Amino acid sequence: MSRFFSEKYSELTPYTPGEQPRDMKYVKLNTNESPFAPCQAVIDAAASAAASYQLYPDPDCKALTDALAARYGVAPDEILLTNGSDEILNFAFMAFCDEKHPIAFADITYGFYPVAAQLNRIPYKTIPLKEDFTLDPEDYIGIGMNIAIANPNAPTGIAPLVSDIERIAVSNPDSVIIVDEAYVDFGTESAIPLTKKYDNILVAQTFSKSRSMAGARIGFGIGNKALIADLNTIKYSTNPYNISRASAAAGVAALENDDYFMNNCRTIMENRAWTVDRLKELGFDVLPSSSNFVFAQADWIEGGELYLALKSRGVLVRHFTLPRISNFVRITIGSIEQMQRLIEEITALRKERV
Amino acid sequence: MSRFFSEKYSELTPYTPGEQPRDMKYVKLNTNESPFAPCQAVIDAAASAAASYQLYPDPDCKALTDALAARYGVAPDEILLTNGSDEILNFAFMAFCDEKHPIAFADITYGFYPVAAQLNRIPYKTIPLKEDFTLDPEDYIGIGMNIAIANPNAPTGIAPLVSDIERIAVSNPDSVIIVDEAYVDFGTESAIPLTKKYDNILVAQTFSKSRSMAGARIGFGIGNKALIADLNTIKYSTNPYNISRASAAAGVAALENDDYFMNNCRTIMENRAWTVDRLKELGFDVLPSSSNFVFAQADWIEGGELYLALKSRGVLVRHFTLPRISNFVRITIGSIEQMQRLIEEITALRKERV
Repeated sequence: MSRFFSEKYSELTPYTPGEQPRDMKYVKLNTNESPFAPCQAVIDAAASAAASYQLYPDPDCKALTDALAARYGVAPDEILLTNGSDEILNFAFMAFCDEKHPIAFADITYGFYPVAAQLNRIPYKTIPLKEDFTLDPEDYIGIGMNIAIANPNAPTGIAPLVSDIERIAVSNPDSVIIVDEAYVDFGTESAIPLTKKYDNILVAQTFSKSRSMAGARIGFGIGNKALIADLNTIKYSTNPYNISRASAAAGVAALENDDYFMNNCRTIMENRAWTVDRLKELGFDVLPSSSNFVFAQADWIEGGELYLALKSRGVLVRHFTLPRISNFVRITIGSIEQMQRLIEEITALRKERV
Repeated sequence: MSRFFSEKYSELTPYTPGEQPRDMKYVKLNTNESPFAPCQAVIDAAASAAASYQLYPDPDCKALTDALAARYGVAPDEILLTNGSDEILNFAFMAFCDEKHPIAFADITYGFYPVAAQLNRIPYKTIPLKEDFTLDPEDYIGIGMNIAIANPNAPTGIAPLVSDIERIAVSNPDSVIIVDEAYVDFGTESAIPLTKKYDNILVAQTFSKSRSMAGARIGFGIGNKALIADLNTIKYSTNPYNISRASAAAGVAALENDDYFMNNCRTIMENRAWTVDRLKELGFDVLPSSSNFVFAQADWIEGGELYLALKSRGVLVRHFTLPRISNFVRITIGSIEQMQRLIEEITALRKERV
C-alpha cells in the first residue's frame, strides 16, 4: 500500500479471481468457462470490427442493445450493457445502496458482493442459507433492505424459485432486488419477466458462460427504465465507452446464432447429469445444480486436499476456504472428455485412499 | 431518475462523449480518433484471440504489461492496464483522493475530471489557465493538493513543460500528481521518466489515439509500484477482468509494430502543420498544438455557429459551451484528404460570410 492510498479503502480485500495458471496445461474446471468456442460468425464479427479499431465504439451499444431487447422481449431503454456482469453489479451497488440503504445477501454466494459493498462503503447483512444450502425466502420477506440474490446461486448451483423472488420483491417495495443470473441458461427460470411488473427488480446477466464469451466482457442489466437510466448516469460518469468494438459486434453475432449457444447449454446439462451420477458413485454428496458447475463433497477426502490432489494430476477445480463450504470443491462442467478425465483422476485417487 | 437512486449521485452530471451520429456519413473530426486503421497484425491478433473468447482474459494482462514495460523502460509492477484511460483516471481519483485529499486541475481541461471528482465525492478546485490558455506552474507549486494535469492539455492542445511538472511534484511531496498523457505521442515529451525518481507521479496513457485503437479500450497507468498496487486493489474490487482477450492480444501486436503507429503520428503532425497554416490564412487564431487536434477560433464566425455550419456540410468538429472557450472549435487532425475537405468547407463558408 502506498502512503497516498485513501483511508476509505485501507481495509478493502479485493475479489480473488479463479487461478489462471501459466505453468502448464490443465484440464481447467475452475472458472466456469464454456468448453465450447463461440461459433465462426462471432469470431468473424470480432475480426471485422477490429479492422476499424481506430474508431470509438458506440457508447450506447445500440445494435447490441436492440438485439438483446428483441431476444428478451423488453424495450431497449430497459437494458444496459456493461463490461462483464461484475460491472453491472458494481453499478447497481453504487446507484441504489448507501449508508441509509444497506444490502442483504446470503452467507454463501458470489464473493464479489461483499467486495462491492466494502468498496462502496455500503453496510451489508449476510443471511445464512439453510443447512441444505437452499435460500429461505422467509428470511428476506419485508426486511426493507436492498437484496442481491444469485439465480442460480454460486458456488452451490442451487436455484431459488422465481415465485419466491417475486414475493421478496413485493414485500420490499422500497428496495431494489438485484437478481444475478450469470448461470441462468443452464436449466432454471429467469426473473426477467418480473421486471415488466415491478419497478424494483434488476436482473443481471452475462455472455461469459452460456454464450462462450468470458473473454469478450459483455454483461447486461434488465430492469425498469428508470433503474436503467440511473445506471446509465453511473456508467457515463465512470467509463462511457465500456465495451470494445470487437466485443459489441461479436455480441450481436452471438444473438443471431443463439441456437448454437443454447444447444451447447443443453450439452453441458447432459454432461452435468453424467458427472453427477459418476460423482455419486464415487461417494460424493452433490448439491442439485442448475448451473454449469457442481458443488460436491466426499467423506473420504477433505475439499482442500481434493483440490490439491487434482491439481497435481493436471485437473483444476476451485476450492473456497469459507467455514461452511471448506469441504466442498466447485467443478465446472466442461466437455464430456474433460469430465471423463476428471472422473478417471478421482477414481484413481479414491483407490489410493479408501 | 428512479425513486431508488442514491442521494449521493442525485446531483451528478455525467460526462458527455462526442457525438457518434448514425444518421449519415460525416467527415468525423470530433472525437480525436486516428484516421488510420491499425496494421493487419493487430487485426489478426484480435481475430485469433476471439477464437478463444470462451476463456476469461488474463486478469493481470501479463503479456501486454510485459510488452509495455519493455517499450517504456519500466518494471511490470509499475504498470496497470485498464479499460481505456478513463478507467485509470477514475481508479486514481478513487484511490488517492477523498474528503481530506482534494484535487486541483485547470478550468479548461478534460471534462472527465470534474465528473470523476463528483462521482467519488471528492472536493476539487479548478485553477484558471492564463489568458493565452497556458498553465502557470506557479499556481500549483506547494498547494498541498492532488493535481491532475493533461500533457498536452485538452481541448487546447497546449503541452506544459515536463520540468514544470517535476517542480510541481517536488513541491507537493504528499500529494499525487496525475499526468494525463492521452495525446503525448503527437509531439511532446512524456513525464514517464519522472516516475522513476518520484513516488507521487502517476502517468496515464492510452492506445486510443496514437495507436489507432479507441475501439479496443486499452488505457494504462505508469507509476511507482506502491501506487500501482493501490490501483490494483481498486481494479480487483470493481472489475477484475477489465480488458477483453481480443483487445489484450491486439495491444501486444500493436507494440510489436510500434513503428507503424509512430509513423502515423508523424503523418498526423504533418497534416496538423498543413491545417494550421490553412486555418491561419482563413483568419483563424489557432492555439499551438502538441496533440492530434487543434483548437481554433475566428473573428468572422462564432464557435457554435461554425460547428453547426460544418455539420450541415457533412464535417463534424467539437464545440464546447464553457464561457472562456465557447468561441472555439476543436478539430481532430485526420488524413490529408479529410483536412482538405475541412478547409474547402470553411473556405466556402467564409466566402458566404465575409
